[in-house]
Amino acid sequence: MSKNLTKREVDYSKWYNELVVKADLAENSAVRGCMVIKPYGFAIWEKMQAELDRMFKETGHENAYFPLLVPKSLFEAEEKNAEGFAKECAVVTHYRLQNDPNNEGKLRVDPAAKLEEELVIRPTSEAIIWNTYKGWIQSYRDLPLLINQWANVMRWEMRTRLFLRTAEFLWQEGHTAHATKKEALVEARQMQDVYAEFAENYMAMPVIKGAKSESERFAGADETYTIEALMQDGKALQAGTSHFLGQNFAKAFDVKYTSKEGKQEFVWATSWGVSTRLIGGLIMTHSDDLGLVLPPKLAPIQVVIVPIYKGEEQLEAISDKVNVFVKELRKKGISVKFDTRDTYRPGAKFAEYELKGVPVRIAIGKRDLENNTVEVARRDTLEKQSVSQDDVVDVVANLLEEIQDNLFNKAISYRKEHTTEVNSFEEFKEAIKNVGGFVSAHWDGTIETEDKIKELTKATIRCIPLDNKLEEGKCILTGKKSTQRVLFAKAY
Amino acid sequence: MSKNLTKREVDYSKWYNELVVKADLAENSAVRGCMVIKPYGFAIWEKMQAELDRMFKETGHENAYFPLLVPKSLFEAEEKNAEGFAKECAVVTHYRLQNDPNNEGKLRVDPAAKLEEELVIRPTSEAIIWNTYKGWIQSYRDLPLLINQWANVMRWEMRTRLFLRTAEFLWQEGHTAHATKKEALVEARQMQDVYAEFAENYMAMPVIKGAKSESERFAGADETYTIEALMQDGKALQAGTSHFLGQNFAKAFDVKYTSKEGKQEFVWATSWGVSTRLIGGLIMTHSDDLGLVLPPKLAPIQVVIVPIYKGEEQLEAISDKVNVFVKELRKKGISVKFDTRDTYRPGAKFAEYELKGVPVRIAIGKRDLENNTVEVARRDTLEKQSVSQDDVVDVVANLLEEIQDNLFNKAISYRKEHTTEVNSFEEFKEAIKNVGGFVSAHWDGTIETEDKIKELTKATIRCIPLDNKLEEGKCILTGKKSTQRVLFAKAY
Ligand SMILES: [Zn+2]
Ligand SMILES: [Zn+2]
Repeated sequence: MSKNLTKREVDYSKWYNELVVKADLAENSAVRGCMVIKPYGFAIWEKMQAELDRMFKETGHENAYFPLLVPKSLFEAEEKNAEGFAKECAVVTHYRLQNDPNNEGKLRVDPAAKLEEELVIRPTSEAIIWNTYKGWIQSYRDLPLLINQWANVMRWEMRTRLFLRTAEFLWQEGHTAHATKKEALVEARQMQDVYAEFAENYMAMPVIKGAKSESERFAGADETYTIEALMQDGKALQAGTSHFLGQNFAKAFDVKYTSKEGKQEFVWATSWGVSTRLIGGLIMTHSDDLGLVLPPKLAPIQVVIVPIYKGEEQLEAISDKVNVFVKELRKKGISVKFDTRDTYRPGAKFAEYELKGVPVRIAIGKRDLENNTVEVARRDTLEKQSVSQDDVVDVVANLLEEIQDNLFNKAISYRKEHTTEVNSFEEFKEAIKNVGGFVSAHWDGTIETEDKIKELTKATIRCIPLDNKLEEGKCILTGKKSTQRVLFAKAY
Repeated sequence: MSKNLTKREVDYSKWYNELVVKADLAENSAVRGCMVIKPYGFAIWEKMQAELDRMFKETGHENAYFPLLVPKSLFEAEEKNAEGFAKECAVVTHYRLQNDPNNEGKLRVDPAAKLEEELVIRPTSEAIIWNTYKGWIQSYRDLPLLINQWANVMRWEMRTRLFLRTAEFLWQEGHTAHATKKEALVEARQMQDVYAEFAENYMAMPVIKGAKSESERFAGADETYTIEALMQDGKALQAGTSHFLGQNFAKAFDVKYTSKEGKQEFVWATSWGVSTRLIGGLIMTHSDDLGLVLPPKLAPIQVVIVPIYKGEEQLEAISDKVNVFVKELRKKGISVKFDTRDTYRPGAKFAEYELKGVPVRIAIGKRDLENNTVEVARRDTLEKQSVSQDDVVDVVANLLEEIQDNLFNKAISYRKEHTTEVNSFEEFKEAIKNVGGFVSAHWDGTIETEDKIKELTKATIRCIPLDNKLEEGKCILTGKKSTQRVLFAKAY
């Protein structure tokens, strides 16, 4: 059938692109590099948002909203940040269209409506937010300031892929201000923990918590904390970052507070974000050649029920049975779809829900009616079992938990098998090439070595794990002294 | 104290602007006409969003997300729509900044990064969405398509006011496609009903449901349905609109479906939206010279508890009592803040929560401890009562309902007092000038007359009420025949 996907072994990248479109998650739009997030894909994003938003609020943050556009003069105030994003900024230069006198029915930019100062569409909001915080922070009583924003941002990337790298994407960006360096560091690490907890407990996607090397740091940050996940093709995905910004933005925007002791001090800052990129990570952690596999905690539909019947009468008899346990399942907070469309056959429905990654499928036909059973199939292992209608609610509730755990454990196993410790550059190249995944190796700490390794192998330093043990060793490339291993991988 | 507002009688417009800023709802930003929505203001928007989103989903709609930017060639495809918005479009012309060679540390637009086709920041999304729907709709089985988007949009308005009219604003926009004209009309009216229900039941803001006259219709619509509210200064506010778009966008973007009979037909469309403008309406419906007054159903904090104490020991004794009923209140789903900050005095706290419109304030001091009482104050009437601690949960729960009802009834009374039926142009001018509010009058149905009346009185036709009785009469301006009255008012 036309829904068949390219197999992962054949072409992982093609498999991914096809899956995103065929599972109705997203598609490319008429605007270069910008995607349309379709209702099913957006429903996953809404589930992610709901959990993250709850976690942000539980850690004391409030939501707010800041302008989409940033005046160029503000944008350039923090030089490193500006330099980091200048090359991918969409720029608004005019504020009006007019009828094109040479082309009836067409519009053109009105040359008389040129802005005095150009406006940049936010690639990230530090500049506009810190310019605002200047007015909000006077005294130590105004600190900490703990704010999050859900927003769209724009980075004019040259090579884009649905969810993973798009010119416009949706994200949340936290921006906090603190009286002390220590508090800001604690906040940055706390949010990294929140991201890790979300990735592991909701996405069933194991992550390594680490710090970025200098060359991979966020532009304008003194330290970038990251969570790094491993995809099925052995490539790493940076899934979320939390930045300790030092006093860089406070100094660029002159944000000071009066301390308890009456002294004027610059404040300390963090920022942190995750985006619709997470959906790409979710897909590439669990899915298979039949389509999407979703962890139950983020599945818009957790259970689908497909009736197998001939004629209205049979459907009615089935519906009478189904409605009983649908009610029970919903009472337990489980989202259920009973698909009674008569415009599609059961086989087509099975394929559709497999493609869309619905965790549990229940089928019920004439013989099940006679035997008081249903057929329960799980999407992760594709196993089926016959279950008494009396037990179906409990079986399904347990199964959802089991699937959530199984997906996480499978991903952990995969990561274990694809993490290699090496002690020479030969071993390193071998591991990157033949095993893939994370390679743990000593590095001399310089940008030059990092660049050289990237040039030779395409692998980059994903992070310096936070739980690293200190250990003497020699840089795999230069042989210089090193005190700890770092994790390399090819990455998205 | 510095938080004192200008009185409404003295300068309503100044009162509004001060209130928005002092109650921490929003403020102007560094970007012309764009606001920062502060956490307290955003929390009100989140409450609005949650209810509206639930109502949209209950009526069968799903959320999705479409690109921020619209290529000029798509934007101009539906001519009337393009014409209506061309004059207020922010236009992206370049996709990169570079170091300014003449100005160290500064950036400039990279002239080499000029886009081949300019991109417009969406002022509304019909164009980009209908261009997408073309790929989604082939057969009658794909209809109806019921989609909503929560997004930011941009309209380059020359005169802006916080919440009421800003260059960037947040809104939702529903965009639906249907097989028949009748279905589309039913949908457009249904969403007008949803908006009216939300306005009245949640915002406690009575609205008139009507249709717009031709000159006030959405650009590209065949019919615009509106809900019109009346503000305290006698001016009307268009609070939400729902458009029947006919086949205009289907034809502009060539969106056809194959009917059950195998015929190719253009689809029928609606779009509908409400925005952060609603917060402006909320403020101007209920608030007073002391500050914001919020209906309980949309108040981020429904109940605030202020302890009045000397020393840690008294605070502890008070807290022991308070914690008991806080728990009970929260169990009932009531949001409660217990404000134990020692950096502010009770009087300052009272003023702050009055300014912020918290519906119920509970104060508890030493004498209350002795008497087993608390003082309960309601924000709408400013009445206070002493209540036994044993009854406080029930009293507060009832009070919240009473306040919600009282606010609605007050607004209804105000509207009754400020709705005048007139039969001559003298009476009309008199009513517009001296009474304000809605004026119900006969009109000959022509745009010329509507324009002339606006020129002479600044009043516009707000709507042709849907429940209008047919009645013969003469146009107040021209004396020509008319079959029904319409509602005029000065408007925001
Ligand atoms: Zn492998
Ligand atoms: Zn009056």
